[in-house]
Amino acid sequence: MMRSSDQQAFRGATPVEQGNPADDLRMFRRCLSQYGTGVAIVTTSDGTSRFAVTVNSFSSLSLDPPLLLWSIDRKSRSFDAFSSCEHFAVNILSSEQIELSRHFSSKVTDKFANVDWIPGRFGSPLLSGCIARFECSAEARHDGGDHLILIGRVQQLERYDGMPLIFSQGQYSIPLEHPDAPGEPAAMAAEKPNTLANNVLQLIFNAHHALSEAFEEHRRAEGVSIAVARVLATVYGHPGIKVDGIAAQTYLGQRDVEDAVVELARKSLLVHAQDGGMRLTPSGVALREAIGERWIAFQNARLESIPSSDISVLMRTLTRLIDPAAQERAATAAVSGG
Amino acid sequence: MMRSSDQQAFRGATPVEQGNPADDLRMFRRCLSQYGTGVAIVTTSDGTSRFAVTVNSFSSLSLDPPLLLWSIDRKSRSFDAFSSCEHFAVNILSSEQIELSRHFSSKVTDKFANVDWIPGRFGSPLLSGCIARFECSAEARHDGGDHLILIGRVQQLERYDGMPLIFSQGQYSIPLEHPDAPGEPAAMAAEKPNTLANNVLQLIFNAHHALSEAFEEHRRAEGVSIAVARVLATVYGHPGIKVDGIAAQTYLGQRDVEDAVVELARKSLLVHAQDGGMRLTPSGVALREAIGERWIAFQNARLESIPSSDISVLMRTLTRLIDPAAQERAATAAVSGG
Repeated sequence: MMRSSDQQAFRGATPVEQGNPADDLRMFRRCLSQYGTGVAIVTTSDGTSRFAVTVNSFSSLSLDPPLLLWSIDRKSRSFDAFSSCEHFAVNILSSEQIELSRHFSSKVTDKFANVDWIPGRFGSPLLSGCIARFECSAEARHDGGDHLILIGRVQQLERYDGMPLIFSQGQYSIPLEHPDAPGEPAAMAAEKPNTLANNVLQLIFNAHHALSEAFEEHRRAEGVSIAVARVLATVYGHPGIKVDGIAAQTYLGQRDVEDAVVELARKSLLVHAQDGGMRLTPSGVALREAIGERWIAFQNARLESIPSSDISVLMRTLTRLIDPAAQERAATAAVSGG
Repeated sequence: MMRSSDQQAFRGATPVEQGNPADDLRMFRRCLSQYGTGVAIVTTSDGTSRFAVTVNSFSSLSLDPPLLLWSIDRKSRSFDAFSSCEHFAVNILSSEQIELSRHFSSKVTDKFANVDWIPGRFGSPLLSGCIARFECSAEARHDGGDHLILIGRVQQLERYDGMPLIFSQGQYSIPLEHPDAPGEPAAMAAEKPNTLANNVLQLIFNAHHALSEAFEEHRRAEGVSIAVARVLATVYGHPGIKVDGIAAQTYLGQRDVEDAVVELARKSLLVHAQDGGMRLTPSGVALREAIGERWIAFQNARLESIPSSDISVLMRTLTRLIDPAAQERAATAAVSGG
């Protein structure tokens, strides 16, 4: 039983990084971001002003009594409001709300000015388009180092249709469901005579997974993280761009962009102008171009043995699957053409 | 500015469900599961025995000092061990570890018997194949209703390559990255001369998203949740199956299967045998078959205007993208054939 002594057999024996988190806060953050989370906007009101923070520290806590928790950075500009409020609302973001997440984590002064919301029964703003909303009374607060833990007792909730927004490994993403259990298409067992759509969806799922993994492995071989590679590419393509612009273009979190910028600057691959805009140094440009060339070679190797006519049909058919109206137009054209 | 008064303009005005969570714990759970999470296995040891629980209540808490938190059900069989331990380890699961998640949430007696692990520096088991591991000292504990909140001070951490396992809306899934920002393929700006692989990946991403949404909308129109539809289909295809078997076949969480079973039994669509096995009632069979027929009709409508030769090329090309060795074999065959 004791495989524990057999360290040779222990898989995954080489960590990408390891150590004491107190020695390297960015490493700690990268490790924490291995745990995927949703994204929530927590709001409150003191009767005159409204406050909001974007968090990924939300967690369910207790069913009976109905409790949830989240934590707020003591340096947040809304800290005083949340550390003393009697009520708050938790708005769970959908996959369509990346912009809203960015908006509420930005430094905009009146965050509610151009946002669709209504006051909840205790005055906390409820945001439109969310997939769940919890109106809470503040039940307890606990010290949490540089954060404060807030426990809410849920008084009222709502659930809406939609897919959740996911934040994972520094990037916004959406959850990709397993289309079916391996081996046995259990959910569709009755449709055995016609499983074409299941098979197509399964193949698309597998193709996306396989290509993402291959590309990811390629990026890893470059010795740079996804965040660093994306920031490098974006500054290369848009000299003078600022952190906000990079976050918006790459689906990376703001803090992950900031960390990547610090790393690139430390390696003298990137420099800041006085206005906050960034440019690559000559060695940054050279690294970016080397990565770019290897990327093209990798793509070619991956695709070269597939006839270009097959690639055309693949892309045309995927486009028609995405937009059934395009299907109808094509069908009509085919009929009138024949 | 005050759109708040203009309730007419408030989008998403019709919740799927709403109310006071104290009135309906299953509704509360469904609302909570709108927030996607990772999956972690927390372990500890008292020197002789080892303990583990699968949780999705993990959260980062503080960078300085380095703190994290999670919470444990007071009814957990490992509650006493975790409520008094001095150290614990948090193992963050990769997308490949659904089985491990199920194993540690099952009622197996010696959970570590067939699992690859080593003791950490404080004795807590560290599991193989995880994408991050945190060895913690127990910093504080707080009351959390039917759970207890544990705060850990991270003493040592490790990060490994790999994708996180996500649990969202009652199902295991994987994070689907946005391949690029909308409009501007920023990350690949330098590769404009050859963006074929980017375009293919983007199309596959979009196709998966569009088809999933269409299928999801279809399921919604049936008036049953994903979990209920999947449990219904699985019991239909496998009369006598038990809860564990359904969870394993559908990628649903154990508790979500249990909730769906309760709902189906309450509606007299499903009955239990004495051994825990389940069967559909005649009305359960009828509902399942009606959903199945509409599903086939929906598939046909979605695919019928695409020529079957295009579908064949689509499937062949996706298969070759998934397995480059298949590409090589095909290329070799083409050369020797020509």
